[in-house]
Amino acid sequence: MKKLILLLLLVIAQKAIAQKQDYPIQPVPFTSVKLTDKFWNSRIETNRTVTIPASFERCESTGRVKNFQMAAEHKGKFCTTYPFDDTDIYKTIEGASYSLALHPDEKLSKYVDSLITIVGRAQEPDGYLYTARTIDPLHVGSWLGTERWVKEQENSHELYNAGHLYEGAVAHYMATGKRNLLNIAIKNADLLVNTFGPNKRHVAPGHEVVEMGLVKLYRVTGKKEYLDLAKFFIDERGHKEYNKKSKNVYENGIYWQDNKPVVEQDEAEGHAVRAMYLYSGMADVAALTGDKQYLAAIDKIWNNMVGKKMYVQGSIGAVGDGERFGENYELPNATAYNETCAAIGNVYWNQRMFLLHGDSKYIDVLEKTLYNGLIAGIGLDGKSFFYTNAMQIHDSFNHPDIERGRSGWFVCSCCPTNLVRLIPSIPGYIYAQNGKDVFVNLFISGTGNLKVGSKAVQIIQQNNYPWDGGLTFTINPAASMDMNLKLRIPGWAQNVAMPSDLYAYQTPSGQKAEIKVNGKTVNYVMQNGYAVISRKWKKGDKVEMNLPMDIRRVVANDKLPENCDKVALQRGPLMYCAEWKDNNGKAANIIIPQNTTFTAAYKPGLLNGVTVLKANVKAVKVDAGGQNISTENTTLTAIPYYSWANRGAGEMTVWFPQQVKYVDLLTH
Amino acid sequence: MKKLILLLLLVIAQKAIAQKQDYPIQPVPFTSVKLTDKFWNSRIETNRTVTIPASFERCESTGRVKNFQMAAEHKGKFCTTYPFDDTDIYKTIEGASYSLALHPDEKLSKYVDSLITIVGRAQEPDGYLYTARTIDPLHVGSWLGTERWVKEQENSHELYNAGHLYEGAVAHYMATGKRNLLNIAIKNADLLVNTFGPNKRHVAPGHEVVEMGLVKLYRVTGKKEYLDLAKFFIDERGHKEYNKKSKNVYENGIYWQDNKPVVEQDEAEGHAVRAMYLYSGMADVAALTGDKQYLAAIDKIWNNMVGKKMYVQGSIGAVGDGERFGENYELPNATAYNETCAAIGNVYWNQRMFLLHGDSKYIDVLEKTLYNGLIAGIGLDGKSFFYTNAMQIHDSFNHPDIERGRSGWFVCSCCPTNLVRLIPSIPGYIYAQNGKDVFVNLFISGTGNLKVGSKAVQIIQQNNYPWDGGLTFTINPAASMDMNLKLRIPGWAQNVAMPSDLYAYQTPSGQKAEIKVNGKTVNYVMQNGYAVISRKWKKGDKVEMNLPMDIRRVVANDKLPENCDKVALQRGPLMYCAEWKDNNGKAANIIIPQNTTFTAAYKPGLLNGVTVLKANVKAVKVDAGGQNISTENTTLTAIPYYSWANRGAGEMTVWFPQQVKYVDLLTH
Repeated sequence: MKKLILLLLLVIAQKAIAQKQDYPIQPVPFTSVKLTDKFWNSRIETNRTVTIPASFERCESTGRVKNFQMAAEHKGKFCTTYPFDDTDIYKTIEGASYSLALHPDEKLSKYVDSLITIVGRAQEPDGYLYTARTIDPLHVGSWLGTERWVKEQENSHELYNAGHLYEGAVAHYMATGKRNLLNIAIKNADLLVNTFGPNKRHVAPGHEVVEMGLVKLYRVTGKKEYLDLAKFFIDERGHKEYNKKSKNVYENGIYWQDNKPVVEQDEAEGHAVRAMYLYSGMADVAALTGDKQYLAAIDKIWNNMVGKKMYVQGSIGAVGDGERFGENYELPNATAYNETCAAIGNVYWNQRMFLLHGDSKYIDVLEKTLYNGLIAGIGLDGKSFFYTNAMQIHDSFNHPDIERGRSGWFVCSCCPTNLVRLIPSIPGYIYAQNGKDVFVNLFISGTGNLKVGSKAVQIIQQNNYPWDGGLTFTINPAASMDMNLKLRIPGWAQNVAMPSDLYAYQTPSGQKAEIKVNGKTVNYVMQNGYAVISRKWKKGDKVEMNLPMDIRRVVANDKLPENCDKVALQRGPLMYCAEWKDNNGKAANIIIPQNTTFTAAYKPGLLNGVTVLKANVKAVKVDAGGQNISTENTTLTAIPYYSWANRGAGEMTVWFPQQVKYVDLLTH
Repeated sequence: MKKLILLLLLVIAQKAIAQKQDYPIQPVPFTSVKLTDKFWNSRIETNRTVTIPASFERCESTGRVKNFQMAAEHKGKFCTTYPFDDTDIYKTIEGASYSLALHPDEKLSKYVDSLITIVGRAQEPDGYLYTARTIDPLHVGSWLGTERWVKEQENSHELYNAGHLYEGAVAHYMATGKRNLLNIAIKNADLLVNTFGPNKRHVAPGHEVVEMGLVKLYRVTGKKEYLDLAKFFIDERGHKEYNKKSKNVYENGIYWQDNKPVVEQDEAEGHAVRAMYLYSGMADVAALTGDKQYLAAIDKIWNNMVGKKMYVQGSIGAVGDGERFGENYELPNATAYNETCAAIGNVYWNQRMFLLHGDSKYIDVLEKTLYNGLIAGIGLDGKSFFYTNAMQIHDSFNHPDIERGRSGWFVCSCCPTNLVRLIPSIPGYIYAQNGKDVFVNLFISGTGNLKVGSKAVQIIQQNNYPWDGGLTFTINPAASMDMNLKLRIPGWAQNVAMPSDLYAYQTPSGQKAEIKVNGKTVNYVMQNGYAVISRKWKKGDKVEMNLPMDIRRVVANDKLPENCDKVALQRGPLMYCAEWKDNNGKAANIIIPQNTTFTAAYKPGLLNGVTVLKANVKAVKVDAGGQNISTENTTLTAIPYYSWANRGAGEMTVWFPQQVKYVDLLTH
């Protein structure tokens, strides 16, 4: 009860700040939404029962917790690899906090508090918190530097650690109402405020995230210095001397988005995760300060990314060397890097872009990423992960960057702990509102409790999304009320494969989304990608929307020659792939002729229940001797991309040739 | 007659210098060898009647001659693209000079003299000769700089022009006895001597060749300052400040072999042509000064190049960006750059390495390059050229660096004019001697006139090389004499595919080289790859050597994964390829099973007469619809690599899969 009051206070506090200047659209917090959704509840439950415990267990067994204990006693030797390993604890606490808010759990709550106590002890008297240095300031690694904050560009990640501390602390406070971690964060943030700024120290954070973290701290404390410092850090970028002529992204500053002042940046460049966190931070600061230059910059960058640098299943960061964006249209299949963290950052950024602009195209990108490139990063078991997300696995091609199988943990384990915190926060992405305008962005069964003006209204979603297109929304206002219900009609349901010309559907679908209110079909008005239904709503009003779930053939822009004459398969929000397991041990040998007809069938027993696509296609065979090659008719079984690599390692492909002009003969 | 006397004087002068310190082995100059060889005479004659005239014609029509005329009058505007376009005239004069020595031609001789007059007029009073600057010193392009010699690293090529001037001048003087071009060169070289050196100006030449040129001037003038300046220029390398950490070869100095002092260099790196000219210059200076450090460096570099950076047909310079050597084992087939000039430079360098060490492995590399990667650079018509030399042409793969067809000329036309001068100099690579040791390096029919001690001896070669392995050598001493005849037994005839572990023969040949003297088989001693026949020779002694001409399957080192399970085909010194024209329009679709048997047949009417290889193999077909792929039996016809692309553009490949494990389905 105490918790709910605090949350209420918090929401009011946020509103109060929002009155001044904030996102014109406000998300309905995840704490106000209770899910009944089969697709997502199972994932959130797996996260709670498997991923979070496994993550904490790994933080202990790998020495991440021990680092904090040694820091508290200023003795021992930093016993993991990276100085930013601290963040895995902060991120897991963040995920555990969301989980606790959705599903109270005394044991977990106690464990988190005990960890927070250890974290607190590791904090230095002036608020500095960075175990790698505190354990033994004299014997820090070369990339930490012998002084605080002098090696941000050499990946000391001191400010990155701080940012994740703040995000974890705010989540923990919001979820539990406890200030124990929040106070640690505030003490650390105050140190930064006293250290950095005009006429103080200057630094461009090496790995962004502190900007988002400071904004979150500002939201819960109302302390403007935090917002100012976030803006200061952002504006620090692009003033360091780099070798601009160099093509080496480390030498020219592009790797850190530090080659130009942010307001001059117009392309998604450099390390993809850092980029997503920077653009998200810029969106936050733009919303809270009304900075038009930030807005102009991130709008340009978004158009560049979605128009030239995004994979068809919503992943970003094509290039392994530097975990970064490639050149425009540099989207190789065989060596796609696609860090899971970048997909998560892409969700953060696109949610913010939507809150700024109220356009559904941002949610189209968010949904594409969320249902495909992002959740592909975690195995169905909840404890095996991909750091990179391949577009194609070919038995004859190996590359050090390409993961063929999942791992339980990584030396640099940012992705698993990022998933830990993203999954339970999903309820927070479903609804948003701006006064009487209520946005329904994601189609996830459950109940959302909103207030329109001062009036409570409940929205109950019932569907079997993403498998079925039949969606039901029951509207229960406390008393009848005016409200503009804005139902997002996904781009894919409007023959828009991607809000850019990067990908398109080979043939438009004849069907369109149908909407009924209380059984009567309505001619809805479209506004920024939303069907707007404005009426006086009364308890029990029922809205039904039917999205066309036909199987779509996606084709790529000619500027992606690798995908020339190829198709990718989509049904609803899901992109599909062919995996070795369902296709006689191979996938790279499949040809899908233009005229192929597909059938979709839900398989409850397969991969925790998935709708598979089947079709009669051609496949190429090579005989044992390697002398005879032939094509034969075979049945293609395609599974949702997110579900690949849960049955062992083998070939997988997203893009299929429709016809073959040549073959390359491979000997290994 | 006058000419012959002068040549004699020259040879004596060279000997005089050689007495002091020089290559232990001296080449028999091309002027002492008269060819009757079908293979080479036809090329030398085509060079004389087609290539040289075409080259001069293009020097005129493209404005290269006009540049000299404008420079003479200090007016007009430099009317070609590159400031080093001057060298095309010098190089064509060099080739014309060799040609004149072999085949007097009044008309050509007059024309050359008229050109030399124009060149002389373009020379500035102090000896400076560089039309791009002289035409209009105030409006030179940014890469020339407003001062002389300040932009060598920006490719001003002032010293490169000088080097080719010297090489042309010395050749012209040796061939004709005329000093008109030589005097221009000496005047220019004296300017350099007065300008550069300790306590004078310092510069590392941007594109090496001046070092070799200065050594040649030293040889004909005996003026030690030229040799000293050559050494000075070489030692200047590696002292400029570069960004050593950069991977960009322009920023780190590797492009110009300027990243380290030459004596610390141990890898073949940077622009391949520049590298060959540098290593050749180092060999010259090492021979003439006894510099052991130079020797140690070029020995290491040679081992690196032949062991890790050479293509199976003798080409070098794998990477297009920078026209340079790649990393160790970076020898891609599809994007092989292989500049023709680099093959020519490789011949220069290996000849010098042989003269230093007397080991036949250097001639093995020279022969491999000469008969394959080098002459592939010129079309059978004598007026169409390759700047780059592909290892594979695949209809489905295009790359801006990869030439599929030959051109009559290039904006940067270094390769055609380099061929103009290389082809007629071939007679100079056949014989060499060190006192009583007479080396026979190349098997080219004709007569070599040597002196052993003071005694004249004539060696007459009769063969049908490279098509047949039967070689006859008739030894005609003026009077009977002792001589150690050292017949090179090519590595390929000793089951050595390459003097390194980079390539090998799949199965050793049972046959070995047979040698008879006056009909009797001799058990020869092998010494550094030479069969040594020591005896008192009398007029008419006849030596017969029979080289095994079986068809060899070449396999690559595992460190070249692209060639894993593939074979290249060799017969005698020739590497073979399959071209579209003889193989139903394709080549990339051929599989050569392990057990394939080959037949060789000489086709007088094909490609000016070549021995082709035939075998029953497998080929992959794709049907028109692109849905059906199959393998069928077919007859492979392979032609000598050097002869490809003389019948239009299409697929070509050097490496063939023996068995296929996978196919990559290509849609374009």
